[in-house]
Amino acid sequence: MSLKFEVLKVSGKARRGRIHLPHGVVETPTFMPVGTNANVKLMTPRDLEEVGAQIILGNAFHLYLKPGLDVLKFHEGIHNFINWKKPVLTDSGGFQVFSLREGRKITEDGVFIRSPLDGSKHFITPELSMEIQHAIASDIVMAFDYCAEPGIDYDNAVKALELTTKWAERSLKKIRQLSDQAIFGIVQGAFFYDLRERSAKEITSMAFDGFAIGGLSVGEEYDITLKMTEFTAPLLPENKPRYFMGAGSPKLIVDLVHNGIDIFDSVLPTRVGRHGQALTWNGKMNVRAAKFKFDKTPIEDGCSCYTCKNFSRSYIRHLFDRGEVLGQILLTIHNLHFMMDLSKKIRESIENDSFEKLRGEVLKNYA
Amino acid sequence: MSLKFEVLKVSGKARRGRIHLPHGVVETPTFMPVGTNANVKLMTPRDLEEVGAQIILGNAFHLYLKPGLDVLKFHEGIHNFINWKKPVLTDSGGFQVFSLREGRKITEDGVFIRSPLDGSKHFITPELSMEIQHAIASDIVMAFDYCAEPGIDYDNAVKALELTTKWAERSLKKIRQLSDQAIFGIVQGAFFYDLRERSAKEITSMAFDGFAIGGLSVGEEYDITLKMTEFTAPLLPENKPRYFMGAGSPKLIVDLVHNGIDIFDSVLPTRVGRHGQALTWNGKMNVRAAKFKFDKTPIEDGCSCYTCKNFSRSYIRHLFDRGEVLGQILLTIHNLHFMMDLSKKIRESIENDSFEKLRGEVLKNYA
Repeated sequence: MSLKFEVLKVSGKARRGRIHLPHGVVETPTFMPVGTNANVKLMTPRDLEEVGAQIILGNAFHLYLKPGLDVLKFHEGIHNFINWKKPVLTDSGGFQVFSLREGRKITEDGVFIRSPLDGSKHFITPELSMEIQHAIASDIVMAFDYCAEPGIDYDNAVKALELTTKWAERSLKKIRQLSDQAIFGIVQGAFFYDLRERSAKEITSMAFDGFAIGGLSVGEEYDITLKMTEFTAPLLPENKPRYFMGAGSPKLIVDLVHNGIDIFDSVLPTRVGRHGQALTWNGKMNVRAAKFKFDKTPIEDGCSCYTCKNFSRSYIRHLFDRGEVLGQILLTIHNLHFMMDLSKKIRESIENDSFEKLRGEVLKNYA
Repeated sequence: MSLKFEVLKVSGKARRGRIHLPHGVVETPTFMPVGTNANVKLMTPRDLEEVGAQIILGNAFHLYLKPGLDVLKFHEGIHNFINWKKPVLTDSGGFQVFSLREGRKITEDGVFIRSPLDGSKHFITPELSMEIQHAIASDIVMAFDYCAEPGIDYDNAVKALELTTKWAERSLKKIRQLSDQAIFGIVQGAFFYDLRERSAKEITSMAFDGFAIGGLSVGEEYDITLKMTEFTAPLLPENKPRYFMGAGSPKLIVDLVHNGIDIFDSVLPTRVGRHGQALTWNGKMNVRAAKFKFDKTPIEDGCSCYTCKNFSRSYIRHLFDRGEVLGQILLTIHNLHFMMDLSKKIRESIENDSFEKLRGEVLKNYA
């Protein structure tokens, strides 16, 4: 198992850690930019390195559809294909099962699904997911899980949980036949405390290298997300990384770190950037606003990203006004830089026991 | 007049020159990337510097509509606004008069035109064009001309020519009241030899800092473009820069240099790049082609651009296949690098009297 995790410091429940992976070291807590179609939208690998990204996330299901396993194997994995030298974590496709309901059919063995690209039918099993993630050659593989939809009733949540446990066993068994890639198990259980507890117990009983909390931040109220995390995180072993799947808002991130989470990912910072929204230490900013027409200051004073060092709000507003994609590029750079800067400041604040103060500031500006 | 031009070497009719401008030196012959809406599409200023761009072109009419003169004046010109440190040449809006026929009305005094953005009406005069280009603070201003449509009859071509001459006088007079920016006159005359001769005589009699051949490469047959250039270029003074407006195909560029042209511009390299076409020393390449699915080689072997040093045809093909804009970004970088590399090799070949050999190779590969 090609993963070593150190907890360097604990402050309250917040953890300052370090994950050693085949393609490098990941300092935690950290945000992971999402690269769905073998790229983080609008970003070159150089841009990603410059904003300080340590690890990016790839989507197994999307990469399986395109470019396909043949191309991934031809390049001996995603690192060569996209020319990214640092670690990659791949999701398992479980979340796509959840989000693509059209033509979906779930069986004990796996999931029938229709390609959103061309309508072709595919049968995704834990074993296939492992084969895909093996072809991608990611540093961290995720177990194939069943992510229940919000509003699922208790009986169906039990079924989803039980499938998730069985699929976790099969995922672990299969990946060990294929490679020594690190693999994380995923805790499900919807919004039921007893099911979260049961899932955590079953999943953590297996020899995973880390554990994820899945099935949250999928549309439920913020309080529920937080309560389920507060309840579930302590059930995960202290000596392994904890990953909350799908968290990108600064507010949620500091609340997750407060609860002992180490890594998180989301398309949020890149997606809102493409729509003209900047993330700053003073909260969100709509760069399209008319008031910025004559504003020579950067998006954020003192920010060291390429965008803030070189361009004014006035210019970026103009680019959005004219629909020029360069505006989207510049805001994507800024927003990812902000997320990495936030991650860095979280790490520093844990080291010097000032995390709760930082958390308070972020919660105030992202109320 | 803030322009100094040196002819360093002549080989046949081809000229190796150097233009000194307020924002730097431009080695000629050279291609100028086009930045219509205050940016070269998808390119940061850093990207442009890295591909070797020496001077970029801005469009006065587009910049007048957006961001508008108030914003341009607020930033004291385009250089600060877009954070581009090197020279900028602006066209005058004359070509837009030609291309936007909807709602257009031409008078002796100027041109009524409708904004393609919001339908608002504007009256563009030579004086307004100079005010716009003064607000942009470009290194080289273009006189406001009347670019006749292809297929114009002789009588109307005469009228267009006469207006162009009168507007040239007014442009020159106005810019000298406003600034010491360098200004180029534009020779028109459609596809009639006697009118080209008359226009060249009238325009070159004025105290312009350089001269452009306008109204060509607007849809006419290649032979006509070439014959009119062959006829017109020798009518322009040898000690001033010669600019062919709207040339971006490698074939046309070497034929223009063969006829003594120094600078040229076009959206072609960036536009075809966004559609998946790469320019290479072996000719055009459609990167979307299925045969590149398993091709680990770069777009062009030996190419030193960021794209070719880091990515395979296989990867770029995948990005286009998935509609990921990063593919367009990478091909734009490559194509602009190719144009600047072509310009550089043209300069070197003039210096060592091997330009005709280089021209022969380009003509063969871009037949």
